[in-house]
Amino acid sequence: MRQVAILGIGQTKIDEHWGLSLREIGGDAALAAMHEAGVDKVEALFVGNMLSPLISAQNQLGTYFSDWIGLWGQESVKVEAACASGAAALRAGLMAVAAGDIDSALVVGVEKMSDKSGHDITAALATAADADYEVEQGVSFVGLNALIMRRYMHEYGWKHADFAPFSINAHANAMHNPFARLHQKINTEQFEKSAMVATPINLLDASPTGDGAAAVVLVPAEKVISLNGKPRITVAGSASSTDSIAVHSRKDPLFLSAGHESAKRAYAMANVEPKDIDVFELHDAFSIMSALSLEACGFAERGQGVRLGLDNEIHPQGRVPICTRGGLKARGHPVGATGMYQIVEVVQQLRGECDKTQVEGARIGMTQNIGGSGATILTHILKAE
Amino acid sequence: MRQVAILGIGQTKIDEHWGLSLREIGGDAALAAMHEAGVDKVEALFVGNMLSPLISAQNQLGTYFSDWIGLWGQESVKVEAACASGAAALRAGLMAVAAGDIDSALVVGVEKMSDKSGHDITAALATAADADYEVEQGVSFVGLNALIMRRYMHEYGWKHADFAPFSINAHANAMHNPFARLHQKINTEQFEKSAMVATPINLLDASPTGDGAAAVVLVPAEKVISLNGKPRITVAGSASSTDSIAVHSRKDPLFLSAGHESAKRAYAMANVEPKDIDVFELHDAFSIMSALSLEACGFAERGQGVRLGLDNEIHPQGRVPICTRGGLKARGHPVGATGMYQIVEVVQQLRGECDKTQVEGARIGMTQNIGGSGATILTHILKAE
Repeated sequence: MRQVAILGIGQTKIDEHWGLSLREIGGDAALAAMHEAGVDKVEALFVGNMLSPLISAQNQLGTYFSDWIGLWGQESVKVEAACASGAAALRAGLMAVAAGDIDSALVVGVEKMSDKSGHDITAALATAADADYEVEQGVSFVGLNALIMRRYMHEYGWKHADFAPFSINAHANAMHNPFARLHQKINTEQFEKSAMVATPINLLDASPTGDGAAAVVLVPAEKVISLNGKPRITVAGSASSTDSIAVHSRKDPLFLSAGHESAKRAYAMANVEPKDIDVFELHDAFSIMSALSLEACGFAERGQGVRLGLDNEIHPQGRVPICTRGGLKARGHPVGATGMYQIVEVVQQLRGECDKTQVEGARIGMTQNIGGSGATILTHILKAE
Repeated sequence: MRQVAILGIGQTKIDEHWGLSLREIGGDAALAAMHEAGVDKVEALFVGNMLSPLISAQNQLGTYFSDWIGLWGQESVKVEAACASGAAALRAGLMAVAAGDIDSALVVGVEKMSDKSGHDITAALATAADADYEVEQGVSFVGLNALIMRRYMHEYGWKHADFAPFSINAHANAMHNPFARLHQKINTEQFEKSAMVATPINLLDASPTGDGAAAVVLVPAEKVISLNGKPRITVAGSASSTDSIAVHSRKDPLFLSAGHESAKRAYAMANVEPKDIDVFELHDAFSIMSALSLEACGFAERGQGVRLGLDNEIHPQGRVPICTRGGLKARGHPVGATGMYQIVEVVQQLRGECDKTQVEGARIGMTQNIGGSGATILTHILKAE
């Protein structure tokens, strides 16, 4: 496999963009990445998206965006793995460049959610779960995560307030990210008093959705000559793994086996261990997922993920910095785009562009993007050289 | 790039399978391919599908099927490019095996359409077109193809009856394919008198949709040792290209530029020319698309594609055999699965398993799978060794 580098990044602010269409949001991030990479064409476009058929009555997003940004004639395709669609698109682009069939790929994660609301969005997000055996029973996506969180609290004896540091850290870091959806600090009292969504998940355990897109340009690493003093960022590890789609079918619903397996493979591919990871953008769609992801990736023992927050280890200068740009919780979670925001943010960290939330001396960063309630999980490791 | 071989194939009969779910249909084809390949696990699953979010309220099909057929822990992803989703999934699997990151991939194209009908299906299929600039005007997907066919007839002076040989050939060949949806011979008179759908496209110009799935197992070619006397089938050429998503934005709506470009690249990769192709499974969703695909791929001059049918060259013993298993017209068109049916059928031809519609001595076969009305087109070339 050829080594692949990330040459340019682009992202849009996550928000309810009433005045912008799906086309414009994805196009803006795509063109920003190409502009930063200094290229005016690429050989292929890989789009990560989950909801456009349901929200925008639009399929074939690869070609839809190729058309919009003027890449006629090039290869284009959409990749979908629920909320892991972004990372899945990155991996598809990575494989094509690594295989040597193409010498450049644009990868865009994009979601436009604000054109629907209420029940429509709840139903659309529930398509990540098992339609026949979960959704048919009336459970929503947040409801499934609530069942997992409640069981975790019961099994390991944690209180709801013990999860507060995850959300507080995410909100504090988002204050310094102009692309984040939420810019408001929160404290433990606010966290505890927030409106209930699905017990025990309240509003401050849950990430806000939104409209947004993030993109990168991939090229063979050997072709990267000049970077104007910036380090060369390579994709050193990439892996994807799955568990059962329905939570009730898992051997252990409190262990992200697909997160563990994909992290293990990505560590092996990048030849690193958890202790080598300087920054970790994890998938905190709900606070419980922060704990489970930290445990699955070897940063905490089973049932002890929350301790990293309580011990103050997750902030940018901590031992395991997570959600340094706000995470899903405060940067926002435009579902099919999220995995690409994580990649863009790790690139920013490895380049030293994160100002007040910069992890000092960061050289190796990791992302973990979760589809469904743990069903599809991709782990990527980036290295600065 | 490593050379990749197709080790096993599987398919289900295309029909309205009221008693079978999306899960079962895709699972049956997947397991059939694995059984024929003699493997009980693969490292990754690539699923091509267009409509499951809209028809079955189910996303994340990669993991959905991995779960169903017992591939927990392996990589899984869905790929979507409208009606070209099947070939797009094959190409994604091909790149991953060619890159060397994995040593086996299962690729499944699947669609379950009969759970919706009437307007719901028309609206779902229209998501392949441009939601903002085509569908918003009230045009349906068959309507767009009708506009193209009418313009072609006007521009080149063909009558509707001149397209009859495409449908007659497809129906005749499907008589010998147990997996085909339609088993009825038709003649020119029936073709001309068939009920109108969208002038000039009538019922016998149009392919029937349906429920179905087709699958293959991909492995590095060097790992294929024994095949019980069957030839080794390799993916010698693979390319994808795009045009504008909206028909009205094309430089020339009567030329499949993405078909031309992807065929050109696939020919170059496989080191062959049109005259070397022994069998060509093209995308006859509507009879006009047979003509345009033949022209785009170099089998006929511009505006002369219909002549191949009139000159009796497209049957299995003709100069350019097409739709030898019934094509979309009579085998059926379960949209996201179609590209994989084409691949499976070319494998059958190259193995000499096609009985009365066998192309004698077929060694090189080609497929062309079209997404939208020419927006995304993939061409694959398979070789028997």
